[in-house]
Amino acid sequence: MGATFGRNIRMTIFGESHGKGIGLVLDGLPPGTPIEEGFIKEEMARRAPGKNLMSTQRKETDAFIIESGVFEGKATGTPLCVLIPNSDQHSRDYSILKYQMRPGHADYAGRVKYKGYNDYRGGGHFSGRLTAPLVFTGAVAKTVLAAKGITVGAHIARIGKVKDELFDPLGESIDRLQKLRNHILPVLDESKGPLMEAEVLKAREDGDSVGGVVEVMAVGMPPGLGDPFFDSVESRLAHVLFSVPAVKGVEFGAGFAIAGMRGTEANDPMKFDCNQVRTTKNNNGGITGGITNGMPVLFRVAIKPTPSISRSQQTVDLASGKNVMLEIKGRHDPCIVPRAVPVIEAVTAWTLLDLLLE
Amino acid sequence: MGATFGRNIRMTIFGESHGKGIGLVLDGLPPGTPIEEGFIKEEMARRAPGKNLMSTQRKETDAFIIESGVFEGKATGTPLCVLIPNSDQHSRDYSILKYQMRPGHADYAGRVKYKGYNDYRGGGHFSGRLTAPLVFTGAVAKTVLAAKGITVGAHIARIGKVKDELFDPLGESIDRLQKLRNHILPVLDESKGPLMEAEVLKAREDGDSVGGVVEVMAVGMPPGLGDPFFDSVESRLAHVLFSVPAVKGVEFGAGFAIAGMRGTEANDPMKFDCNQVRTTKNNNGGITGGITNGMPVLFRVAIKPTPSISRSQQTVDLASGKNVMLEIKGRHDPCIVPRAVPVIEAVTAWTLLDLLLE
Amino acid sequence: MGATFGRNIRMTIFGESHGKGIGLVLDGLPPGTPIEEGFIKEEMARRAPGKNLMSTQRKETDAFIIESGVFEGKATGTPLCVLIPNSDQHSRDYSILKYQMRPGHADYAGRVKYKGYNDYRGGGHFSGRLTAPLVFTGAVAKTVLAAKGITVGAHIARIGKVKDELFDPLGESIDRLQKLRNHILPVLDESKGPLMEAEVLKAREDGDSVGGVVEVMAVGMPPGLGDPFFDSVESRLAHVLFSVPAVKGVEFGAGFAIAGMRGTEANDPMKFDCNQVRTTKNNNGGITGGITNGMPVLFRVAIKPTPSISRSQQTVDLASGKNVMLEIKGRHDPCIVPRAVPVIEAVTAWTLLDLLLE
Amino acid sequence: MGATFGRNIRMTIFGESHGKGIGLVLDGLPPGTPIEEGFIKEEMARRAPGKNLMSTQRKETDAFIIESGVFEGKATGTPLCVLIPNSDQHSRDYSILKYQMRPGHADYAGRVKYKGYNDYRGGGHFSGRLTAPLVFTGAVAKTVLAAKGITVGAHIARIGKVKDELFDPLGESIDRLQKLRNHILPVLDESKGPLMEAEVLKAREDGDSVGGVVEVMAVGMPPGLGDPFFDSVESRLAHVLFSVPAVKGVEFGAGFAIAGMRGTEANDPMKFDCNQVRTTKNNNGGITGGITNGMPVLFRVAIKPTPSISRSQQTVDLASGKNVMLEIKGRHDPCIVPRAVPVIEAVTAWTLLDLLLE
Repeated sequence: MGATFGRNIRMTIFGESHGKGIGLVLDGLPPGTPIEEGFIKEEMARRAPGKNLMSTQRKETDAFIIESGVFEGKATGTPLCVLIPNSDQHSRDYSILKYQMRPGHADYAGRVKYKGYNDYRGGGHFSGRLTAPLVFTGAVAKTVLAAKGITVGAHIARIGKVKDELFDPLGESIDRLQKLRNHILPVLDESKGPLMEAEVLKAREDGDSVGGVVEVMAVGMPPGLGDPFFDSVESRLAHVLFSVPAVKGVEFGAGFAIAGMRGTEANDPMKFDCNQVRTTKNNNGGITGGITNGMPVLFRVAIKPTPSISRSQQTVDLASGKNVMLEIKGRHDPCIVPRAVPVIEAVTAWTLLDLLLE
Repeated sequence: MGATFGRNIRMTIFGESHGKGIGLVLDGLPPGTPIEEGFIKEEMARRAPGKNLMSTQRKETDAFIIESGVFEGKATGTPLCVLIPNSDQHSRDYSILKYQMRPGHADYAGRVKYKGYNDYRGGGHFSGRLTAPLVFTGAVAKTVLAAKGITVGAHIARIGKVKDELFDPLGESIDRLQKLRNHILPVLDESKGPLMEAEVLKAREDGDSVGGVVEVMAVGMPPGLGDPFFDSVESRLAHVLFSVPAVKGVEFGAGFAIAGMRGTEANDPMKFDCNQVRTTKNNNGGITGGITNGMPVLFRVAIKPTPSISRSQQTVDLASGKNVMLEIKGRHDPCIVPRAVPVIEAVTAWTLLDLLLE
Repeated sequence: MGATFGRNIRMTIFGESHGKGIGLVLDGLPPGTPIEEGFIKEEMARRAPGKNLMSTQRKETDAFIIESGVFEGKATGTPLCVLIPNSDQHSRDYSILKYQMRPGHADYAGRVKYKGYNDYRGGGHFSGRLTAPLVFTGAVAKTVLAAKGITVGAHIARIGKVKDELFDPLGESIDRLQKLRNHILPVLDESKGPLMEAEVLKAREDGDSVGGVVEVMAVGMPPGLGDPFFDSVESRLAHVLFSVPAVKGVEFGAGFAIAGMRGTEANDPMKFDCNQVRTTKNNNGGITGGITNGMPVLFRVAIKPTPSISRSQQTVDLASGKNVMLEIKGRHDPCIVPRAVPVIEAVTAWTLLDLLLE
Repeated sequence: MGATFGRNIRMTIFGESHGKGIGLVLDGLPPGTPIEEGFIKEEMARRAPGKNLMSTQRKETDAFIIESGVFEGKATGTPLCVLIPNSDQHSRDYSILKYQMRPGHADYAGRVKYKGYNDYRGGGHFSGRLTAPLVFTGAVAKTVLAAKGITVGAHIARIGKVKDELFDPLGESIDRLQKLRNHILPVLDESKGPLMEAEVLKAREDGDSVGGVVEVMAVGMPPGLGDPFFDSVESRLAHVLFSVPAVKGVEFGAGFAIAGMRGTEANDPMKFDCNQVRTTKNNNGGITGGITNGMPVLFRVAIKPTPSISRSQQTVDLASGKNVMLEIKGRHDPCIVPRAVPVIEAVTAWTLLDLLLE
């Protein structure tokens, strides 16, 4: 029952890794919203696998078919359905996984929940492939946000042991945020890109994987959006961010570091700046009381190492009732972080647009 | 529009710090649920202020009146309304705050959102006082969970510079989890309690405040609860956790540290243990693919220093359009973390019960 | 789980007939909405019992206490809670009803649903008294609608055998719609009032009750509101109308009579009228494709006779497992229709405002 | 924003009459639910057009493709997406309708709502064709209900001037209810079938259309399902029934006729019958207090004449700003009622299953 989310722009996703295809339905898009297929394809390509040795060698073009909701290049306002057919499945790779549960994966939890009826091939509905529909929606949302002067950008703040510098919490330029899109390993300190790549390739060589952190900034959000309590901006963003597979942590502004601060340090002093109210720090990540305060929205997301690794791992075999050692065959991402960047951006853009439409 | 949340147990909260009172409506409680007023009062008392120098001196008994939904000591199954009248307001303390925006508070964001119509006295609806209704619901939920063998416990993992040890991720005993309830500063390493208290009292002396981290564990949760994507257990927990004022970060299992791990380290190997499937580590915090896997649910929450401090701070005066220095009068918590513990436990218990009722 | 409804203005109701009180929480009111207590009291008085022999002699003033969400006479935009304390309960009247199920009432269905834990006194949460909170919300909504040129009016189209004439489907004057509020038996053909009153009093004399039909018109609704399919205006209105106790039918425009028409007769021809698009008939009741078309919104609601009658009735005794004859003591309305008029208007006004806020 | 509905089984629909196709996503189906494609095809065929002179001559096979959510013939429990490609569109038939608004249709209301961006060809998203996805869901729901002893049946109670007899409110046999499925014009009094057919063919000959009434009964529903107030069974059924295009009235049990009754007549006396509590009448249509009472759920739905008729009609031309006479070309149903029967059954089965899963 978790297929649908959003208050003003409701997205429903569907599909399995090795079924006919995956896709989405978007409800609530303002009629006349431009659907820029070229830009959407670019965004989808940023997430698509098979581009280099840092990602799985599964070749998925992520070509999409708009089934409904678009007429003469614009959203009609009625539900927009998109299909993304599966093409390069190797179903035989996964047959052993019907009973042998991959550590760190949803296999066991999903099997209990779905009583063994779920499609276990390639992770089924739990596959990271299901993030492709999110990127479609994010691309549409970014188009609308851009027209309102809002830009969402992200960089890789960490892969394994390598850390990038962080965003200036008071705001980055639109230009810098947009240029990050052009890199497979978007970083602020360009010297860190090759180091991160080395970290990923070394893990790949070892039959292992690495995790990382993505940092996101949205500039241009007006103050006064969001709600106290159960629909705080943090609540809504965290809700969708934690729905992205492999995310294990979300922190806004100073995040966990704020726990070690005193109020004098943590509070963001306020001042008039060309008649606008701004703060001189941004430890709150642009959100106070659950509501945007006009400063850049800023947060970081922790992403775990891809659980699919080829190294031998201890696990259970539910058919035999015995403990076994499992080596996962197939094609895997040694690091999901670069492909997660456009996904994290996408759910952010979707949520910010959802807030703006109130 | 953020007053109501929950899928199977829907809570609606209302009230302002300096209005007649605050309260809640609970819809969806199973008929016959015991409403143990004694236990509820104990839980409310854990959150109530005025007990010692670590909290605000505002004396609120948080006495509650059950208006509906309880008959002969049991939940009827129809909506349960609870009123918590306000008693010890000092409204004059706050009058200057109509136009002078407190840094780190919701004042400015709320003023923009509500166009100046919101009740600014004592933070109004944004007041931490609004967490009292959450504790009521948490207490009811804990009673139901206990009958199903599920226990939620929490300790203060950090205040300012002082860190406690962390929970054993493979599980703590029910007894240890429950005993934590008896302490104003619940810690695992008892030597840390006095150090944390000193940290708080020093901040108080300085007219300042400190933040911290709360760690939560729920043992006894069965596997198979939750949903992939938009209703993952992490999504639902993070949603309510980020609705608690002052929370700026949430991380599950190994959390942000997982970003620096490799898959071999991060993955939780699985084995049969007395016919039950268990993992030998718990870096996933009991949740994989958004669904419980039978291991303890484990997470940490970052809490910012109370933004209300008596030290002079730079801010804006919306009446004069000028930058001013503000000293916040009134009675404040030098550290909200100890009082946040029962609140964090409460929203956790509520959410876990919500999951169990599916 | 049916206590909360509404997309943009969410109302939560609570309470039982013989508990401490009843009430509501309104979330989503635009900040600054005037809360006109005088007008609200007038509306509540229209619904209140005890005014004459046509209603129950239970004396309930329906005095209300605003607990939150109003500051200096205006809605703050945060949740508005209203308490309506119970005052004139005679709990002893109902004790026999714990096991003897009143025909036509929710007693048996509710007992099964709530497993015997519900408060059976006076119908508990199923009591018609729970419609008082609806009238509060309706009064607030009417104030907002009036400022936008929208008026909701209703008359009694039928009581028992006596039928009033019907509204002109092309629209009534605001003045005529508003004046209907001033009558206990609002009718278009004034000669029908005394006949209806006689019908009610005769039923009362016989220890019996009568049903009726209420017809509602809203003028001034702009075209283009509502949604196709699952959130059609008819769906949303019918949803709340069927939540009013005793409603057994809802029909829009020509309603059931349209089933006997041909398309040439049923279709509403369109024309320009002072640059506005209007129809020359209104068989669709102002709604086509689930969306308002700018014509008056028009519908009728069938209300069953009060099931509480003093005449002896056959029913079951769940304690003895035997069939018994039951005479319901206590104070009952011989006809609920007059008191239902302001309730039906109220849920209509609430829903129309909910639509307008999209 | 009305594309998604349901509490436990959430359906999202999408598509336009003349786009690529239409379809649905079903979320919340219990894992292991049999997906019987043969039965689903039979149900879809009951709704499909082109079978005889009583329906439009558009030939749509309504062949469907299951994109996700089914594995080895059973529902996986993850979202089930179904595509129904469009095949026999004649888009040129509709081009004049961009500016000339068809009376009785959603054209004008939709144009205002969607600001002219909606796909106007063939009614676009408002097309009756969008009811095909509902039938798919209904067929799946019927399979599950049947396994629980619940049967939904319907007959045509009226077409134009011809009325069938009504269901025995105390219950029809499962056999009789099921056999109704086999008829294009399902009636209880078989002599009425030919008369209804004649009524339809006469309308067709006249370039006109006729409306009707569908009566539905569900037997086997257990007592205790549903909620008071905003989620009454009547509310939820009416919500989906009024989302079916052309429905203008819904009445439960005695419906509008109950308005003319006295309580002694309207109340349903209760008695033990083989240890089960039953009523000796069923004027409440199996629902009291919004909750099922164990008697057959019984209601009637008024359906308007197809607004598309070939007779000349007065309407507006939004391009010229002038009143014009419009003759609608293309292929139309002279009576939508026979094809509405399986649709009405379908949304009923869906809603009853939704209730059962609580």
